Amino acid sequence: MGWAIALHGGAGDIPRSMPPERREPREAALHHCLQIGVDAIKAGRSPLDVVELVVRELEDNPHFNAGKGSVLTSNGTVEMEACIMDGNRKKCGAVSGISTVKNAISVARLVMEKTPHIYLGFDGAEAFAREQGMETVDSSHFITPENIERLKQAKTANRVQSNRTVGCVVVDGYGNLAAATSTGGLVNKMVGRIGDTPIIGAGTYANSLCAVSATGKGEAIIRATVARDVAALMEYKGLSLKDAATYVIEECTPERTAGLIAVSATGEVTMPFNTVGMFRACATEDGDSEVAIWHDEPCD
Amino acid sequence: MGWAIALHGGAGDIPRSMPPERREPREAALHHCLQIGVDAIKAGRSPLDVVELVVRELEDNPHFNAGKGSVLTSNGTVEMEACIMDGNRKKCGAVSGISTVKNAISVARLVMEKTPHIYLGFDGAEAFAREQGMETVDSSHFITPENIERLKQAKTANRVQSNRTVGCVVVDGYGNLAAATSTGGLVNKMVGRIGDTPIIGAGTYANSLCAVSATGKGEAIIRATVARDVAALMEYKGLSLKDAATYVIEECTPERTAGLIAVSATGEVTMPFNTVGMFRACATEDGDSEVAIWHDEPCD
Repeated sequence: MGWAIALHGGAGDIPRSMPPERREPREAALHHCLQIGVDAIKAGRSPLDVVELVVRELEDNPHFNAGKGSVLTSNGTVEMEACIMDGNRKKCGAVSGISTVKNAISVARLVMEKTPHIYLGFDGAEAFAREQGMETVDSSHFITPENIERLKQAKTANRVQSNRTVGCVVVDGYGNLAAATSTGGLVNKMVGRIGDTPIIGAGTYANSLCAVSATGKGEAIIRATVARDVAALMEYKGLSLKDAATYVIEECTPERTAGLIAVSATGEVTMPFNTVGMFRACATEDGDSEVAIWHDEPCD
Repeated sequence: MGWAIALHGGAGDIPRSMPPERREPREAALHHCLQIGVDAIKAGRSPLDVVELVVRELEDNPHFNAGKGSVLTSNGTVEMEACIMDGNRKKCGAVSGISTVKNAISVARLVMEKTPHIYLGFDGAEAFAREQGMETVDSSHFITPENIERLKQAKTANRVQSNRTVGCVVVDGYGNLAAATSTGGLVNKMVGRIGDTPIIGAGTYANSLCAVSATGKGEAIIRATVARDVAALMEYKGLSLKDAATYVIEECTPERTAGLIAVSATGEVTMPFNTVGMFRACATEDGDSEVAIWHDEPCD
């Protein structure tokens, strides 16, 4: 038992040859966001508060594909998605098609807390966020020069580029669990495309056993109901968190499509992925801590 | 082994005192749609074709909450959702926020077959359907006088009314499975509300073991990942189709919130529900057939 936290900045074909000027700010952001989460846990904030806080930080960081830094649709617009889930109460909230609200994850939380629904999309989600007085920004806030260039390249190659998310999972010292995920989706995606992130049981899931946030190729994650299956393997087959997560990543999703972070009610952490890399970080109450991108990296 | 089909027109607080003039056209529609499905199976159509065909019939029938007959949002508009899944290939398609296309289930199938994505929502889904040349109609096609009245009542009572879906699941004589679900959602729902229907693993799911379509209170079905859990209990706990479905309806969803129809690869059928009633029908190759609304009804 004890608290634990894990967070990710997306899984995918992250080249090991990534130059230091691209790698270092991302590693620094992972360290920074991990510290914010650890501090909040130590200050007694609830797991739900902590995952929201950490994901907001990740959204505000332009180096990850969520919030500021979101990739662009085929029309050059931003359509963000997010999801949050409270494990013990199994309450959850999700949004798709967010285009002006600064932090999609906080809209998802308000959908959970202030509506009779779980999931709002597009104009209705935007209208709800404005009614709630949430901070909106011009779409130029989200769009980085790098993502304009990536869309151009994707259009030239006529492909939809597989992309990333951000996410965080937390368990406190009492076994309370929460998960949150946020994304800008795929480069050059069709307008209106919904991925795995806001889908309870695919990109995001938490119950009384574990909390899971998945990342990678959204369509593969939806088909494999990745996040729910980690929990279902624990619940119905009696697997440990680590075995359940490994099974889902190795057996249920195609190679090079998926990664996930997960914590259990008893304070275990696991961060498996079958992609080249996954931006990730974790820490536990007993002092373990890791910030890494590729397989077989030495721990910090 | 052998083919089997089941379909539903929604579960909920369907009063046993329902007058014959309301009950009879719905029973007749269930018989009619069942016959269409059975004929298509016997003609050798694929399970995917059959579930789409039957759900289109149910959508076109004004007595059920999908397509023509869809209930209205708090703004008096129609926002339909649908999902289709092919069990063996685990391919799937889904849409939300359909407002002018006559048959949402066919848009879902085209998303599956013609895009690199699984799920499109709102304006993007509508634009895609138009690009594909799908039949559109004026929104007056969908809106019935009965649903205008129901919205008025729901607004007076200031409540979001729990509502229904339509769905169909089919297995052919070779164990190929498919599931489809379609809905107008909840009476007086917020604009942009997404329910369980289009969520793979919640309202709709199929793999190589079974095909499931759920109906009832969408938010309860999302939280319990109802459709995936039926399959997961078979896959990870070795339960039979019937035991898995009964467990999900009795243990995983609150009373009076959910029902489902399911068929297995070996030709079993089950249709449990914990609501007062569920409009439903099924038939199997060995000659069993049932059309019913409440519990403990004599079979036909």
